Amino acid sequence: MSLKNTFVHHVHFWLKDKADQPKLIEGLNTLLPITSIRDIHIGVPADTNRDVIDRSYDVSLLILFDGSAEQEAYQVDPTHVLFAENYAKPLCAKVVVQDSINI
Amino acid sequence: MSLKNTFVHHVHFWLKDKADQPKLIEGLNTLLPITSIRDIHIGVPADTNRDVIDRSYDVSLLILFDGSAEQEAYQVDPTHVLFAENYAKPLCAKVVVQDSINI
Repeated sequence: MSLKNTFVHHVHFWLKDKADQPKLIEGLNTLLPITSIRDIHIGVPADTNRDVIDRSYDVSLLILFDGSAEQEAYQVDPTHVLFAENYAKPLCAKVVVQDSINI
Repeated sequence: MSLKNTFVHHVHFWLKDKADQPKLIEGLNTLLPITSIRDIHIGVPADTNRDVIDRSYDVSLLILFDGSAEQEAYQVDPTHVLFAENYAKPLCAKVVVQDSINI
């Protein structure tokens, strides 16, 4: 199925200490009740391994929103703000976000 | 909705020449009939712009598969092989793939 009217928000997290992976995932699970989220996937690198594959990150968060307004609502949702303060910022050495919209 | 049993395959493309964006997108659209694909999103950077956001890529391809077997079938599907040869390789300076599975 071709996903139309979809705002793709993909975040990759690199931990300061790989031992904190369960704690970060615990934090990501606190995001599940946020109502502006359409679909959410919390993941780790697959075992694929080719030249073009980046498997250096520790945890992946993919969220599909209905559009830009929903993504903006998510950014300011208190549950997301708490996640950023209590989990992402203290635990991560690097966070990269890629936001894509349909063409 | 929390996406379970989902193999996330996200590819970001950086073109040699930004004028080739329509041609690459034409190529990506040839992938749509591949039967191992569950969901596909062809996109470009959203207008979000914060420190953590990477908006340097030219085109995004997100595919959701039911699992690793479907992703492997896609890699060797003749339609995908032709896309790689005729569009991705000649047009792109850099391609980065991030594959993630549920935890």
